[in-house]
Amino acid sequence: MSETGDLHATVEMLAGKVRALEDQVEIMQLVARYGPAVDSGSGEAAAALWTEDGAFDAVPHLKMRGRDDIIAMVTGDGHQSLLGGGCGHVLTVPHIVVNGDEATGRSYALQVRWDADADRFWVFRASANTWRWVRTPQGWRIAERVNAPLDGTEGHREMLAPPAVSPLPEEE
Amino acid sequence: MSETGDLHATVEMLAGKVRALEDQVEIMQLVARYGPAVDSGSGEAAAALWTEDGAFDAVPHLKMRGRDDIIAMVTGDGHQSLLGGGCGHVLTVPHIVVNGDEATGRSYALQVRWDADADRFWVFRASANTWRWVRTPQGWRIAERVNAPLDGTEGHREMLAPPAVSPLPEEE
Amino acid sequence: MSETGDLHATVEMLAGKVRALEDQVEIMQLVARYGPAVDSGSGEAAAALWTEDGAFDAVPHLKMRGRDDIIAMVTGDGHQSLLGGGCGHVLTVPHIVVNGDEATGRSYALQVRWDADADRFWVFRASANTWRWVRTPQGWRIAERVNAPLDGTEGHREMLAPPAVSPLPEEE
Repeated sequence: MSETGDLHATVEMLAGKVRALEDQVEIMQLVARYGPAVDSGSGEAAAALWTEDGAFDAVPHLKMRGRDDIIAMVTGDGHQSLLGGGCGHVLTVPHIVVNGDEATGRSYALQVRWDADADRFWVFRASANTWRWVRTPQGWRIAERVNAPLDGTEGHREMLAPPAVSPLPEEE
Repeated sequence: MSETGDLHATVEMLAGKVRALEDQVEIMQLVARYGPAVDSGSGEAAAALWTEDGAFDAVPHLKMRGRDDIIAMVTGDGHQSLLGGGCGHVLTVPHIVVNGDEATGRSYALQVRWDADADRFWVFRASANTWRWVRTPQGWRIAERVNAPLDGTEGHREMLAPPAVSPLPEEE
Repeated sequence: MSETGDLHATVEMLAGKVRALEDQVEIMQLVARYGPAVDSGSGEAAAALWTEDGAFDAVPHLKMRGRDDIIAMVTGDGHQSLLGGGCGHVLTVPHIVVNGDEATGRSYALQVRWDADADRFWVFRASANTWRWVRTPQGWRIAERVNAPLDGTEGHREMLAPPAVSPLPEEE
């Protein structure tokens, strides 16, 4: 009896740890899908990474709100011309802080472009990224992403500052 | 009795989730070993990331088939001269889709080179990567990797397109 | 009885696998915090990633020993001027080898800087990184990091060579 009780407690504790690991890995994988989606021109696949009404601020040019705005960006002339010229959106694994059904993160994105004349690639942009993710019935989705160039602007580098108060450790 | 039965079911469910997490983390780690292996000139360590008859297409120059071809690339004059000049093969975490004992992925690789005269590094190549991994008795190994520059070539950027049909969720 | 015994063994085995996964993900996340900490000028947050007496060699210029040295680097004139000019420290996910309460790793770091005159970013440094982490009561911390430019120096690229002897698989 009591042995089974102990086992129950251990299994419950393990289930909590597994859930926390799944959150981390699923969010890492969500972020890993962004670059391939936009660099292959797959607007719908990119938009599907966000919630229906998700936000994406590409500072300072674009404020996208909802999936249609993201599709419009990917299929738009600006982005299509980037793809034709040769381009990669290279994102890093974020620092991810999960708090129940929400999570926040901070990471980097490089936009690297091909220069056929110079016969080399060049770094168009290195940017700070902040993320807010939410757990949906279909899995984690992006609720808000802000992408801002690390060009010395104080507000952009402050996006990367660690959360003022760390959330409590997972309490299950 | 029935309580133990419930526990059995829960433990079995957890075992499936743990296996899925291990697959993701092991494949991430497999990919994380490529750069250090080739940039330290460790041909055998690089080759060991592939299956015995694994394939590696470095578009457009090289079609490697089997571990000996990969060792030959690492120990060859071209790669050795890269190492002498200063070079880093910087890979991102792929989007990984596991389907039983096989998995596929899409990611980026940067090849960054030192330019002593200009006193700076430069980006020789930013490329699309597709991967096919297989589970072996020794763990996950690369069955096929294709690395192709994102220089505007349509076929190269289409490598990054999301799988047309998502595989079913893991059914164990 | 024997059924409960089997279950015990399975749960214990799962607990070991979960611990191994936690080690990997926690160390990945520890590394993911470095860039955001230093690029936002958060000296204390950067220092807190190390053990109290942790070491950080930024070859060839700086040998930091202990958290105060790391805070001094982040708040110092050199780093502050970098931040003002626009800068990103972009780190990759390391290959991580855990051995009990210690772990070692190898990865890359890019330092990318904004050039306002040329209206583009450039790669100041691509470097080999070696890490030694230790498990503390507060979680994994950096005991030692070495960061050395991949500029053709033999000793720097050899930092990336795989461990001569792989540690035994996790024995719990």
